[in-house]
Amino acid sequence: MTQLKQSAPRIGVLQAGPLNLISDVPGITVGHATHADAQIQTGVTVLRPHAGDLFQDKVPAAATVLNGFAKSIGLLQLDELGVLETPIALTNTFSVAAVAQGQVRQAIAANPEIGRLLPTVNPLVFECNDGYLNDIQAMALTEHDYLMAFDSAQQRFGQGAIGAGRGMSCFQLKGGIGSASRQTPGADPYTVGALVLANFGKLPMLTVGGHLVGPRLQAKIGGHDDSVEKGSIIILVATDAPLDSRQLRRLSLRAGVGLSRTGSVFGHGSGDVALAFSTAYTIPHLPVRKMPCVALLHDVLLDPLFQACAEAVEQAIVNALWSAESIQGRNGHWRTSIADLIPDWQQWLNTTGD
Amino acid sequence: MTQLKQSAPRIGVLQAGPLNLISDVPGITVGHATHADAQIQTGVTVLRPHAGDLFQDKVPAAATVLNGFAKSIGLLQLDELGVLETPIALTNTFSVAAVAQGQVRQAIAANPEIGRLLPTVNPLVFECNDGYLNDIQAMALTEHDYLMAFDSAQQRFGQGAIGAGRGMSCFQLKGGIGSASRQTPGADPYTVGALVLANFGKLPMLTVGGHLVGPRLQAKIGGHDDSVEKGSIIILVATDAPLDSRQLRRLSLRAGVGLSRTGSVFGHGSGDVALAFSTAYTIPHLPVRKMPCVALLHDVLLDPLFQACAEAVEQAIVNALWSAESIQGRNGHWRTSIADLIPDWQQWLNTTGD
Amino acid sequence: MTQLKQSAPRIGVLQAGPLNLISDVPGITVGHATHADAQIQTGVTVLRPHAGDLFQDKVPAAATVLNGFAKSIGLLQLDELGVLETPIALTNTFSVAAVAQGQVRQAIAANPEIGRLLPTVNPLVFECNDGYLNDIQAMALTEHDYLMAFDSAQQRFGQGAIGAGRGMSCFQLKGGIGSASRQTPGADPYTVGALVLANFGKLPMLTVGGHLVGPRLQAKIGGHDDSVEKGSIIILVATDAPLDSRQLRRLSLRAGVGLSRTGSVFGHGSGDVALAFSTAYTIPHLPVRKMPCVALLHDVLLDPLFQACAEAVEQAIVNALWSAESIQGRNGHWRTSIADLIPDWQQWLNTTGD
Amino acid sequence: MTQLKQSAPRIGVLQAGPLNLISDVPGITVGHATHADAQIQTGVTVLRPHAGDLFQDKVPAAATVLNGFAKSIGLLQLDELGVLETPIALTNTFSVAAVAQGQVRQAIAANPEIGRLLPTVNPLVFECNDGYLNDIQAMALTEHDYLMAFDSAQQRFGQGAIGAGRGMSCFQLKGGIGSASRQTPGADPYTVGALVLANFGKLPMLTVGGHLVGPRLQAKIGGHDDSVEKGSIIILVATDAPLDSRQLRRLSLRAGVGLSRTGSVFGHGSGDVALAFSTAYTIPHLPVRKMPCVALLHDVLLDPLFQACAEAVEQAIVNALWSAESIQGRNGHWRTSIADLIPDWQQWLNTTGD
Repeated sequence: MTQLKQSAPRIGVLQAGPLNLISDVPGITVGHATHADAQIQTGVTVLRPHAGDLFQDKVPAAATVLNGFAKSIGLLQLDELGVLETPIALTNTFSVAAVAQGQVRQAIAANPEIGRLLPTVNPLVFECNDGYLNDIQAMALTEHDYLMAFDSAQQRFGQGAIGAGRGMSCFQLKGGIGSASRQTPGADPYTVGALVLANFGKLPMLTVGGHLVGPRLQAKIGGHDDSVEKGSIIILVATDAPLDSRQLRRLSLRAGVGLSRTGSVFGHGSGDVALAFSTAYTIPHLPVRKMPCVALLHDVLLDPLFQACAEAVEQAIVNALWSAESIQGRNGHWRTSIADLIPDWQQWLNTTGD
Repeated sequence: MTQLKQSAPRIGVLQAGPLNLISDVPGITVGHATHADAQIQTGVTVLRPHAGDLFQDKVPAAATVLNGFAKSIGLLQLDELGVLETPIALTNTFSVAAVAQGQVRQAIAANPEIGRLLPTVNPLVFECNDGYLNDIQAMALTEHDYLMAFDSAQQRFGQGAIGAGRGMSCFQLKGGIGSASRQTPGADPYTVGALVLANFGKLPMLTVGGHLVGPRLQAKIGGHDDSVEKGSIIILVATDAPLDSRQLRRLSLRAGVGLSRTGSVFGHGSGDVALAFSTAYTIPHLPVRKMPCVALLHDVLLDPLFQACAEAVEQAIVNALWSAESIQGRNGHWRTSIADLIPDWQQWLNTTGD
Repeated sequence: MTQLKQSAPRIGVLQAGPLNLISDVPGITVGHATHADAQIQTGVTVLRPHAGDLFQDKVPAAATVLNGFAKSIGLLQLDELGVLETPIALTNTFSVAAVAQGQVRQAIAANPEIGRLLPTVNPLVFECNDGYLNDIQAMALTEHDYLMAFDSAQQRFGQGAIGAGRGMSCFQLKGGIGSASRQTPGADPYTVGALVLANFGKLPMLTVGGHLVGPRLQAKIGGHDDSVEKGSIIILVATDAPLDSRQLRRLSLRAGVGLSRTGSVFGHGSGDVALAFSTAYTIPHLPVRKMPCVALLHDVLLDPLFQACAEAVEQAIVNALWSAESIQGRNGHWRTSIADLIPDWQQWLNTTGD
Repeated sequence: MTQLKQSAPRIGVLQAGPLNLISDVPGITVGHATHADAQIQTGVTVLRPHAGDLFQDKVPAAATVLNGFAKSIGLLQLDELGVLETPIALTNTFSVAAVAQGQVRQAIAANPEIGRLLPTVNPLVFECNDGYLNDIQAMALTEHDYLMAFDSAQQRFGQGAIGAGRGMSCFQLKGGIGSASRQTPGADPYTVGALVLANFGKLPMLTVGGHLVGPRLQAKIGGHDDSVEKGSIIILVATDAPLDSRQLRRLSLRAGVGLSRTGSVFGHGSGDVALAFSTAYTIPHLPVRKMPCVALLHDVLLDPLFQACAEAVEQAIVNALWSAESIQGRNGHWRTSIADLIPDWQQWLNTTGD
């Protein structure tokens, strides 16, 4: 498992959860399937909001599209109904179809009347374009990879160049999967967790903890890439606070706050999408089972969750960068790990005065 | 080719185009691939907005989601960029992935740098659930079916139980593909065309030309189905008027006017989505080619287009019903053609006084 | 009080509530202030969702903008927070400011710390342009008129050329305030009520109960007005079903179904806005008071509410037309009551065979 | 005129325009009307996108609501039609009505058929709550103040505690009006300008140029205010690039990037609204005048504009802080100027090592 380097900069002022992972929100597990073989550097990452059957016990959710240069599937119905009803899958752009098909077949296997007596199921797959390191046109992933990732889901999971993050680039360095969590202040805290698939940004704009580090790194690695940004970032936000989809939409927008602070301006060619969900209650598929009686968190109490979201997302991006190892992929393309460029963050800061 | 019965009721007051098809908007062609074999009653319908490469010459477009119980792919990017860049495909819910994959491969074949030097392509596939007549879980369609439908596209095309319409039900009668067109009044008219994949509605609500005919038909065919609506309708609206995506969004909403008049209330379980596009100009993929210099239609002049849209959509739904033959499908399920129940519309109206 | 003519056509199949008014939803009251004096034909109508202080006990709500040629105030915050916190006011376009100011002062009077220790209050005022019959530039209404309308609110209230409806035109006939209600089928019905401020439409498009009656009426009254539509319609929808703002947004869209069936295509120059709210529970202003524990209605059960909404809105528009007396206003402008043109609906239908 | 202190920190990497004001976009002027008298500390600021009659020559525009705890008027129609048709006014929350009324009367004076033969006009007024320093309940502003601000509009205008900014607070320091501009790189640059009404934020979160300065300032001024944020920020973004309303909506969202970097998380109680407009062309009120033939900027070329927007907005907020003088207002409430706390930014940074 890829390990987070100890030297990763620490973002913000709020306290992290025990694992500093999205799975600090109880019930959440994450799994990966990874293909790493010369031209093929890609994979699938699956987040399970709870251990049960999501079609039967749906989870309140909502999304914000920060920049819709994106080919995700599933947000149309999620916007209307305010719930998700499959695990959340992340993959490369041209594997959305295969992974969605895996979700559909998995749901049918569990509920054989889907599409017949029951309505159809809504697959939920997000994507980034890993075509720089990965031969994306090979469409190497299959439904099986989705199931592999699903089956491997656990509370402790790898970050960096793993799963859907295998072939991703971020600020023209090696990117991928990152995660973090933050707790709201007070005696009875809520947890907000974030998981990102980070594949965005141009190096000169990279900002870490408020420090514009991109130009110095650019000078260090040399070269100059003036191509248009074709990246993306998918941001998953989870909380155990009792929120409904309207409130979760508000929360999901604050993922953009964290993203902004890393130097992103939500570039034109970047598919920047944030999804937020709550694990505090579930909605039954059919009304033959009683609707939950929910006392939502009052909106006036949302500010600490907003701040936790912003910090967790910024930290998750930093963690993606610091966790990802350097990789050579398609046609010898190379992405460097920032952890190789900045072995010690405090020392690096001190030697430049940034 | 399935022919529109001569007896189909005539909707509205505006004049239809020469074919009374969406292809009265110059340049549009439509093709079908149909599977009709006992349990398998399904297919693909493809609409080509123009004869060229849509990735290179994108078409201004916008959508309205009337009810988002829907699993379409492609609207996220279309909302952001206001263009479509593939042909429009219609199919059954569980074939969205296969058809989208066909679109991706077709775009790559035409533009081999997609996903590498070029950005990825945005597939655009709409769906309805034909699971009553079709074994939707068989997932019988492949990328090949998309290409077959694409290759067969022409200006004159079949309606009813054909292509994606093969297995669809509408008001618990046989539904499917329908099309119509209307011209704005005046010396230099614009054309608004509609094509629907009609798979929605409960029979007691069926209204034709303002006449609530559902209850009488229900009595005639007997039986009673109190299941929840699990249908959908996809509505494509085309015009040759020079509109941008903001104006096309306004136009697409008026598809809901036509739909309302057939008795629909945009049922909870129905994926009711309308897409509008203009053929008046195209947007080049890259700015190395000059942007078109467009004088848009002034918004004050939109009302005749709105009326034409409402009429064309209502007529297209009526045409879908009157074109569709009776079909027996999965497990002996049967859907009756309304043309068999109402052989002569005027006579039928007169004998009841409705 | 203006009375609904007995001859008003009956819309739809569902049962009306006892009063066939929006106030069949328990707790709702409506009041009017009317100016009717030669050039000045205008007023204010106020709907109180409950008898208490709405700032302290907010009501879940959501809106759909069918066509945003509209100058309402208050929807921005309502969209974000999903509640309304003042009574709902209707008036003419140039009196929005005066009426909103009245709402602000009223809220401050009840809660003196608004804008200081407490946040500001969100006024909610909708408008139509009554400039054909009323000298709208005179801006004759004041905050006092808002308070007058508020104070006169009761369960039984007038319809037609009264309150905000005083100077409104609808299909170039006399329009104004209309209301209706419908109950969902079953032993334990929910009520959906509608109240409209009807000021939209061109006569040739008028459709009543599916019958296109406009052209015949046009021939009867003679003349021809080819001006562009400058009207609007405000639609308020209420229910006692326990819905949240996401569900209420879905419900509010179905107001467009009823509106479509009267002949409207949501004209370019028409401000067509629908607001839906639920009286089933309230949200306290501050979390020092406990949030309600709400078991929402399952979305699968929404279809009867959607149908009730569509029918109630269509009926409310018909009731506005049939309730409004003929009026002469600014510069001798005249609007005829449809009740004068069609004294007996059934007889009128029979003599033409429509 | 309030002057920008020379010591204000410089944000970002792009070059500012000659004035570093929104009026570096040619044609734009800004004016203020200010009330500063013990309990009354408030005013109006007016931005004129061009020198002509905006009702006759409308300007393409779009808005993003970052957090809708806001009582602005005018966005409903702006969203539908994609243009603004009055000057843009900023004021305090309870003066929206008076200022909107001023806009309506001004438009009628210029076009006497508004509301009669012509449609009504859409006022556009944004607000923040200055109730900490200003007796907002006094509603001291009138239509006359709007006209005063309009008449005083010029290319060089004051910043800080002036006009609508007079009574505003920002990060619990003195806030108000700030402005800045940035140019895109290259030989033929576009200009993006920003003007903010800054009234948001809690001091511990204040971040300037990536440096979290809030806690140190908090320690310096002492005291502790744990009240809930009741502020807001209005952000106006202008460009001379030829964009349509869809593109301007994309641009307006990037205002949130600049805002995020100052420490904001778009707090629950904050009305955070961004409006973007282009001065590159205008839309005639009626189609009797020809529509402009516009070659829009290709979306692929938007990234430099996005970056310019983010930088200009962050800089405008910094400029608002550094321009605003310390003020004592209602009930002796006091807000300190950051320029008094940090006389020299570089020195201040060096002495702490931040």
